[in-house]
Amino acid sequence: MLIIFGASGDLTSRKLIPAIYNLFKGGHLSKNFCVLGVSRSNMTDEEFRTKAILESPFLQKENSKEDPQTMQAFAEQFHYQDLGSDYDHSYDLLANRIASLNEQHGTSGNYIFYLSTPPSLYEVIAKNLSEAGLSKEKAGFRRLIVEKPFGYDLESAKTLNDALHHYFNEKQVYRIDHYLGKETVQNLLVTRFSNSIFEPLWNRRYIHHVEITNAETVGVEKRGGYYDKSGALRDMFQSHLLQIVSLLVMEPPISSDAEEIRDEKVKALKSLRIMKSDEEIVKNTLRGQYVKTEIDGKTVKGYREEEGVNPESTTETYAAIKFFVDNWRWKGVPFYVRTGKAMPTKVTEAVIHFKTPHHEVFMSQDAYRKDNKLIIRIQPDEGILIKFGVKVPGLGFHVEQANMEFYYSDLESAQVMDAYERLLLDAMQGDTTLYARADEVEAAWRFVDPILKCWENNPAVNTYGYSVGTWGPRNSDELIEDSFGWRNPGDLLTDETGFCILC
Amino acid sequence: MLIIFGASGDLTSRKLIPAIYNLFKGGHLSKNFCVLGVSRSNMTDEEFRTKAILESPFLQKENSKEDPQTMQAFAEQFHYQDLGSDYDHSYDLLANRIASLNEQHGTSGNYIFYLSTPPSLYEVIAKNLSEAGLSKEKAGFRRLIVEKPFGYDLESAKTLNDALHHYFNEKQVYRIDHYLGKETVQNLLVTRFSNSIFEPLWNRRYIHHVEITNAETVGVEKRGGYYDKSGALRDMFQSHLLQIVSLLVMEPPISSDAEEIRDEKVKALKSLRIMKSDEEIVKNTLRGQYVKTEIDGKTVKGYREEEGVNPESTTETYAAIKFFVDNWRWKGVPFYVRTGKAMPTKVTEAVIHFKTPHHEVFMSQDAYRKDNKLIIRIQPDEGILIKFGVKVPGLGFHVEQANMEFYYSDLESAQVMDAYERLLLDAMQGDTTLYARADEVEAAWRFVDPILKCWENNPAVNTYGYSVGTWGPRNSDELIEDSFGWRNPGDLLTDETGFCILC
Repeated sequence: MLIIFGASGDLTSRKLIPAIYNLFKGGHLSKNFCVLGVSRSNMTDEEFRTKAILESPFLQKENSKEDPQTMQAFAEQFHYQDLGSDYDHSYDLLANRIASLNEQHGTSGNYIFYLSTPPSLYEVIAKNLSEAGLSKEKAGFRRLIVEKPFGYDLESAKTLNDALHHYFNEKQVYRIDHYLGKETVQNLLVTRFSNSIFEPLWNRRYIHHVEITNAETVGVEKRGGYYDKSGALRDMFQSHLLQIVSLLVMEPPISSDAEEIRDEKVKALKSLRIMKSDEEIVKNTLRGQYVKTEIDGKTVKGYREEEGVNPESTTETYAAIKFFVDNWRWKGVPFYVRTGKAMPTKVTEAVIHFKTPHHEVFMSQDAYRKDNKLIIRIQPDEGILIKFGVKVPGLGFHVEQANMEFYYSDLESAQVMDAYERLLLDAMQGDTTLYARADEVEAAWRFVDPILKCWENNPAVNTYGYSVGTWGPRNSDELIEDSFGWRNPGDLLTDETGFCILC
Repeated sequence: MLIIFGASGDLTSRKLIPAIYNLFKGGHLSKNFCVLGVSRSNMTDEEFRTKAILESPFLQKENSKEDPQTMQAFAEQFHYQDLGSDYDHSYDLLANRIASLNEQHGTSGNYIFYLSTPPSLYEVIAKNLSEAGLSKEKAGFRRLIVEKPFGYDLESAKTLNDALHHYFNEKQVYRIDHYLGKETVQNLLVTRFSNSIFEPLWNRRYIHHVEITNAETVGVEKRGGYYDKSGALRDMFQSHLLQIVSLLVMEPPISSDAEEIRDEKVKALKSLRIMKSDEEIVKNTLRGQYVKTEIDGKTVKGYREEEGVNPESTTETYAAIKFFVDNWRWKGVPFYVRTGKAMPTKVTEAVIHFKTPHHEVFMSQDAYRKDNKLIIRIQPDEGILIKFGVKVPGLGFHVEQANMEFYYSDLESAQVMDAYERLLLDAMQGDTTLYARADEVEAAWRFVDPILKCWENNPAVNTYGYSVGTWGPRNSDELIEDSFGWRNPGDLLTDETGFCILC
């Protein structure tokens, strides 16, 4: 039984219920499976089913195409329970309701609690569940899925972990990061550890630097109020991007066992060199904010004009960080990671820049294009691209750069599960591989914390403006000065747009 | 000035003159350039121009599309000189004719002699050229291009080299192997030495075995008489295929200088482990002959039924050789090279089979497909393919094999020169990189010689039959027993046909 707290919220109807529907359609759910929605609103089961499923804008296609009986059968697996105004009462009522549904559906006492609520409620819910006797695993399992953000900084993350550990074992806690549910992110591990040709090259001897870009075309949209308290560093970098970093950086695990993989990821995150002085932080980081921009005669709002945003806000919508990894494999290899809103394209990719051949036998046409690159495209146009040198046809031995490419969509079995679908199924099956462990989350915060503090407290840190639709502040290439600048990717894996358009 | 001996022969009209025409069209020839055709037939300049150019079936397209004045201007650069019946007289006449053309066209005494005659005439022509004072470089250069086969075995190759060195310096001798004129063959060097990602993997530590396949769909056609005295080992293996082997095996050269590259190629060929005993040869080699085959109700001739072939011939139309390379880089890595006629498809490719990952973190679907492969397609569908493992979409971490590919035709500058065109231009410019040096040819024969001798003299060596349109004798997979069998390529780079069809 899946018990969703915050059942009338946006995430539930937008992501969770469609994912559950796909699992249902794919035959992944047992006949006994049922959902209990929990929130502060007063609703009957029928009302909940109508709102969340039968009239949901996120299941519109399914409702219009699917045979109504199937949709009705699906909806009947959903129930609703009102929990009063503060998520702090009525747990006896809830426990009774769960027990009766358990009886009715035959769910063998297996409960997953999905906390799709503001993080401030995690502790109180965990405490109440525990006190109502719902956290102890007896006959069935008891699992707690919590959404990010997991903490606001290192201290709050630790406090939250401690609180949850009061009521649940770490093994019962599933910290969801939907980036890890993406096939292309998981494929990082397979690319590295199921091939003999990549791993020998995957170290300081052959790699010059590593670059990760995450870009969105949209601004903060309606989330200005939330975003202004968070910023790119918390919203993207600490969670999603450091997850990608850990998969690129980690040592080969002993096996594909969840704990083995997570042990290696934690070790990877712990090996990131923490920046100790403000001077170091100022030198190796850059924050930016998109500003009001004229595009084709139309004025596009800047961040400070967005609804819910403080007009004097210094919250970053763009962050770029250069850092090093202090371990045997990576010593001295710079990592450049950037994330931004209001950029030219929506894309997430990692680029491994290999060193140029140490002895030049044949002349290259263009120094910039001399190095081999492995580009791992996470979204969109998922795939892998190798840029390598081939002979220019004709006389002599001149070299130009060509592409060798693989697209995920070429796979016969390319029916890719949505990230939430995959992660929910993992949680039901007790597979924690793709969930973040307490020490993992804390290791990520430990790296981010000093940067956050410095950016917030040091008046010497500038917030650079950048025009909407550009690759960030004008001086962002200065951060990556020891290479040929950022690779500014296009919509397609093979695309490259020009350097930053200067505003 | 290019002086072609055997000017009325097939190679001249089929390959050389079209190549010269393309160089002319491409603006690669100086205005002073001219050709003197030499052979035993009695012809005027006009007759030669008509036969070899204006009415040539190999320039049909050019003659019909091109402005007649251009073709006429091209033809007028051609002249003809009759040399009597045996290529052993009238060199005074020839010398005078050359001198007068030199005067007429202003070719500054730069002469290239192209011997497109049977190899038995090479020595006598060289001697006569020398005696007529045409071999010494004074004001201009004097170069001698000789076609393969260069020798019939080690001894005859040495004798021929010694003879030529009597009259010309080694630096003047250009032994042509048109395989080396192919862009994809030259690109082997660039792939290896202009990229930092391949060379670190290019050794015994990461490579399990190397496979080279050369297949033709046709039988011996009208060349039965010649072929029956030669065979696959002499016709393909000793020259073209060992050239490819040397490029795959060689160490990085100091520079792209012709002598540096040829030094490394010779060293590579010298490191092939020569098979010393008949027992070793029987174990590591296989010869076959295509036999009469019914295909779709029609009978296709076997080799022994071909015109000009001894009905009891044991000459091989299929040869497969397993060998090792005794040097630091390659010790213990088996090389499998095969060539055959009357096979399912026309293809030449090299496959680098990498070792499987030494520690299996994630489960592979299929053991056969677990190893990474780098496939270098030389013809047709020229390109490079990497076979590597990716995650099967869905739960868990299962691995399947996918392709990452590059096609030469994708290059913007894909206007590829024909092999003869490229090689002729190199000879004019004095670039010997793509021509075989005396010691190179001898090193190749030194490896092939014991196999030839054993196959010819040891009655214990069988000649296995194979049906037309199959991948060789039934037992050919036994030779490659320490792998998963031959990769039997299709027309497309990504294709793989089944294992041998057993006859």
